[in-house]
Amino acid sequence: MAISSKKSLSFLGEFGLIEHIKNNNTKAGPAHNVVLDIGDDCFVFSSLKNSKYAVTADILIEDTHFKTKWATPEQIAKKAVEVNVSDIVSMCGAKPLYLFISIGIPKNTELSYAKRLFAAIKKNCDKYGIHISGGDTVSSEKLTISVTIIGIKAGKLITRSGAETGDIVCVSGNFGDSGAGFDILNSDKKNLTCYEKKLVKKHLEPEARFDIAKILCGNNIKITSMTDSSDGLFKSVELLTADYNKGAVVYLDKIPVSDELVKFAKNDKNKIYRYALNGAEEFELVFTIAPKDKIKLQKLIPEISYIGYVNKSKGIKYFYNNNETAIKYNGYKHF
Amino acid sequence: MAISSKKSLSFLGEFGLIEHIKNNNTKAGPAHNVVLDIGDDCFVFSSLKNSKYAVTADILIEDTHFKTKWATPEQIAKKAVEVNVSDIVSMCGAKPLYLFISIGIPKNTELSYAKRLFAAIKKNCDKYGIHISGGDTVSSEKLTISVTIIGIKAGKLITRSGAETGDIVCVSGNFGDSGAGFDILNSDKKNLTCYEKKLVKKHLEPEARFDIAKILCGNNIKITSMTDSSDGLFKSVELLTADYNKGAVVYLDKIPVSDELVKFAKNDKNKIYRYALNGAEEFELVFTIAPKDKIKLQKLIPEISYIGYVNKSKGIKYFYNNNETAIKYNGYKHF
Repeated sequence: MAISSKKSLSFLGEFGLIEHIKNNNTKAGPAHNVVLDIGDDCFVFSSLKNSKYAVTADILIEDTHFKTKWATPEQIAKKAVEVNVSDIVSMCGAKPLYLFISIGIPKNTELSYAKRLFAAIKKNCDKYGIHISGGDTVSSEKLTISVTIIGIKAGKLITRSGAETGDIVCVSGNFGDSGAGFDILNSDKKNLTCYEKKLVKKHLEPEARFDIAKILCGNNIKITSMTDSSDGLFKSVELLTADYNKGAVVYLDKIPVSDELVKFAKNDKNKIYRYALNGAEEFELVFTIAPKDKIKLQKLIPEISYIGYVNKSKGIKYFYNNNETAIKYNGYKHF
Repeated sequence: MAISSKKSLSFLGEFGLIEHIKNNNTKAGPAHNVVLDIGDDCFVFSSLKNSKYAVTADILIEDTHFKTKWATPEQIAKKAVEVNVSDIVSMCGAKPLYLFISIGIPKNTELSYAKRLFAAIKKNCDKYGIHISGGDTVSSEKLTISVTIIGIKAGKLITRSGAETGDIVCVSGNFGDSGAGFDILNSDKKNLTCYEKKLVKKHLEPEARFDIAKILCGNNIKITSMTDSSDGLFKSVELLTADYNKGAVVYLDKIPVSDELVKFAKNDKNKIYRYALNGAEEFELVFTIAPKDKIKLQKLIPEISYIGYVNKSKGIKYFYNNNETAIKYNGYKHF
């Protein structure tokens, strides 16, 4: 954290910070149905008739999820919002409405640093029409950002559990970049090449696939299950199949990877697919569709990749060049 | 944190922890309207017709809000739930329904410690009929517990802003115990006396005034404003009056204090009222009522104290034995 002997947060206090958030807040639109705005004991909203609300909570902690020497306050704030938006859009057709943010921040943080952090939270909320609705600010040793988002969910509920035998496993974009970017940052290498910089950016500035989810969920495609790949593609496929007594076949050579990752891995297939399957903090959508909808989806969103299919077995088999590969992968572990 | 070389959290992993929460969760009752329970990308609930929902978020961080050498996991968990329930019940008539918990926990935490923490979260949720609905578990250096609660709000909205000139300032219980308890803990004193132990317990095991709020808000008393005293009584009175261009007269000798606090302060009035006004992490209700309702309220809840009244001035004046006191008090500061 940036440290200064003057104009530090101690001058501002908790109530000052809340005041700052209030004064610089995203204006709640009519869709937000705000009854009592941020700044009281609770935030209160009135529900729409027969509505479903989707809620998710994620926490980012300095030195676990980011280092302040790597990431700007703008990047930290962006990630804190995007990881939660990603969970909301994984509910297919859910729209994020309200964000609650609890921040632990070192006492000697420069006021300008905190202001940049809050401005970036607001900017990322604005992008999605999210209203900052409440929160808590306390002092802590490590910068800590805990976010809860409430979204409104229209249409049929798409969960992780609906995949059926024969369904096709689809993904919304490249895998492995974020994991490679993380390793580059960890290596403390100076003078990064152009492709290394791109990989690092993918790690530091992830983006929820709100764009894809919006098209995907509004066009009568039969999506049978969906999640995001926040814990890695390997884990995502498991979440949609093995966790519900189903299996899958996944073709490694069909998993989309970037040119940057290929360069970084020096075309070593083992390395490429280790990143693609294990790399966490990547927020692509992983979902299954009924086979009959594949052609329709190909026309609708050309960038979707089809990496395998669901079967009856209780495990996941990986193939490369049509040969089963014995390489063992492990999902990302937080502990 | 308790540390062990074996059976630490590393064996369990994030998914194991979520599984543990799921398997040991408070069963959602019919009132919870659960559409999709904990364990997917989001928790989903269906809203009741024309309902209002109250949401609050608070975070507790080791060495800012508690020390693990002072507090048991049961006490830490209790505080994490109660501080949020207190905000919900301050909305008068709001009932907590869903709890989302994001936990940062050191890697080498003993599994048994984490289990005690979760069991206590569950126990405190059960007490209020709250369903644990989602969360996140990550590793961190300091034990960090971030809680968001969504409650349903029936009846008229009571906020911090409705106090009118002439209204009576009321409080639900004693003040200063928690602050004194905190100072006793900080002194590292061994062999505490009986009254010191009681003060420490008030700090470590606060209780939201759900009981009082339930009676208060269901009996046609005209409550004009309300908050809890989480940042101290001084700050609470300010929140209900000065923040809305009103003032108040507060009689120090009418503020209820415990025998334990009087003993601890050796009957030093300055010390007693410094604790009573500044002591934070005390979760009494502070509210204003129309004067005509005082007699009714006295009969209904005899333990309510009437400590002053709202007036037109823009400041708060403190009196002791009918003399204005010049002592300056400051609200609790997080930074």
